[in-house]
Parts: sequence; structure tokens; C-alpha cells
Amino acid sequence: MKAKEVDRARAAAVALLRKARVPVTRSEIETMEIADMGLGDIRRLGLELIVYENNDRYCAKELVLLPRQICPEHRHPRINGRNLGKKETFRCRYGEVYLYVAGERTPGPKARIPPKYKPFFKVWHEIVLRPGDQYTLPPNSLHWFQAGDRGAVVSEFSSTSIDGCDVFTDPRIRRVGS
Amino acid sequence: MKAKEVDRARAAAVALLRKARVPVTRSEIETMEIADMGLGDIRRLGLELIVYENNDRYCAKELVLLPRQICPEHRHPRINGRNLGKKETFRCRYGEVYLYVAGERTPGPKARIPPKYKPFFKVWHEIVLRPGDQYTLPPNSLHWFQAGDRGAVVSEFSSTSIDGCDVFTDPRIRRVGS
Repeated sequence: MKAKEVDRARAAAVALLRKARVPVTRSEIETMEIADMGLGDIRRLGLELIVYENNDRYCAKELVLLPRQICPEHRHPRINGRNLGKKETFRCRYGEVYLYVAGERTPGPKARIPPKYKPFFKVWHEIVLRPGDQYTLPPNSLHWFQAGDRGAVVSEFSSTSIDGCDVFTDPRIRRVGS
Repeated sequence: MKAKEVDRARAAAVALLRKARVPVTRSEIETMEIADMGLGDIRRLGLELIVYENNDRYCAKELVLLPRQICPEHRHPRINGRNLGKKETFRCRYGEVYLYVAGERTPGPKARIPPKYKPFFKVWHEIVLRPGDQYTLPPNSLHWFQAGDRGAVVSEFSSTSIDGCDVFTDPRIRRVGS
């Protein structure tokens, strides 16, 4: 990703955090992860995130999605006999989020996926999250989400995050990070 | 606690959540825990809280402290061989919080404790949390906190919460809840 694109995504994410009145420190802004998942199309596919805490027991992050930005379909697999995969709760703080999980396909979904990415989105049961709404995903379950037209800020509460273990439906995706 | 006092604490907590721009649902307001710890002095000692999620792996709450309200000294003890006690992160969203933990006593602390409660506050190492600041406590460590003059809203991220197991320094305190 070009430095200019990273800077642009960061500035847009900071503007959304300000709109959401989520206080973050200067150092958190500087170290904010701008994740394009290796696809080089950050404005449409990826997300911006601040990891508040990630330890051996729990994790908390603030996720920012630019208008219509998509976090692509993935799951958090079983790590070992004790850790059956990351369990996570999404709580919408600002904007609107369209979250998709396994289940009956929702007719006329609110999400819009560019045709070239469509083959990599398999689950289409829609959950709409508005400020104050939340949803908890079981471990190892496929999911993806897209922000509405104004973008979104989403708090994520979870068990320990090991992003490098995530399994994406699109085999081209490379996820690095915590 | 009288119903009128509960209603007053709830209304004041909701006003602080609005000031902090933390979106909560009507049902969360209705089920908000108003915890006076059994001491019947909620305006000075206790807290208001919304539990967003508390499952077998992690917990997330929003804590509200009225102006100068004190969460009394306590620790989260070892539960068993696997759970050495609740580990928790406090992140200030609004106002100012004076958090006290074990360590060198801070001279001229910002907290003000009514004399009759003083014997039950043993740790005096001060950490000041302002919006965007956070602090993670190790399991089983004594701590307590007080809001500044404007009150405070604090996000708590933690391992599973089992409030009934908490050990308070003041033996009169009875803590029920999740």
C-alpha cells in the first residue's frame, strides 16, 4: 500500500472516531493499523483499527470502517484443545454496520460487494447494527461486514486475538498483525 | 436502597453516558445495575454499570461514576488452578478517574474519602485516567477508584466477571451481581 493511501485512510478513520466521540491518544492514532489485507484496495476492502488491549485472556479493539468499506469474510479457527477459536462481540458505536453470518440468506441485503469480490462471500444472513446494538459470534464461524454510507465505529470485545491465524475465504488475502 | 435513590442514581448515570456520547439501548438503561455495595450511601460509595457481555472467556462493561463517587477497595481472587483471578483493563471515556493500586503511596492524592470509610482503603499509589487513558490490573490485586468532580464513564474490558467472588477490604460490603 502506498504511504499516501495509508495516510488518507488514517485521516478518514480519525475523522470518524471524532464524529463518534471516541477518545483516543496521539500514540494510538500513530500506531493505528491500516489493514488492506494485502489486496491493495483499502477504500473498498479493509479496515482501520486500534488495539486497546490484547493479552492472554481477552482483547479489546476499536474498529473503524470508512463509508462502505468491507471487512472480508473470515473465521477464527480452533487454536488448540483449550482454545476453540476466538469468540468476539461487535458493538456499534457510530454509523451503521451490516454484519453477515451463517444462516438463512437475507433477501435484498444492504451490503454491496464489487462483483470481482463476490465469489469470496458465502454467508449472507444479515444482522444490522446501529449505535448501541451488538452481536456475539461463536468461535470459528464465518462472518464479514460492511459499513453503511457514513462509515462506522465498532467496539470489539473478544478472547485473545491472534490475527495471523485467521482463515479468509479469499485465498489471496494475507493478514498480518497482532 | 430506596427506589427513589435508585431512580436518582440511574438518571444521573444516564446523563453522564449522554455527555460521554456512549450509545446505550433503552433495555440497557432499564437493567443498569445500581450497586451501592450494601452500604446505603450510593451517592458517595458505589457505581452504576451496564454489562455489555459476560461469557466464559471475556467480559465488557461500561462503568459510570457520579461526581466523586467511589468504587471501594477490592480484589478479584483466584477462582481455581486455571483462573488466577479476573484480569481487567479500565479505559476512561469521559471525565477523570483516580485509580489506586499497590505501590508507593502518592503524596497529596486527588481522591477524597469520607473519614468513616478511610480504614478500608489500604493502597494509595495513584494513577490518573483521563479520556483515552487506560490501565490494566493484574489478577488478585487490590484496587479502588474515585471519579473527579464531573463524574466519569469508564469502559472495562476483562476476563470473565464473577462479581460474587470479589473480596472487599470493608467487611460490611456485600456485592451481588453477575
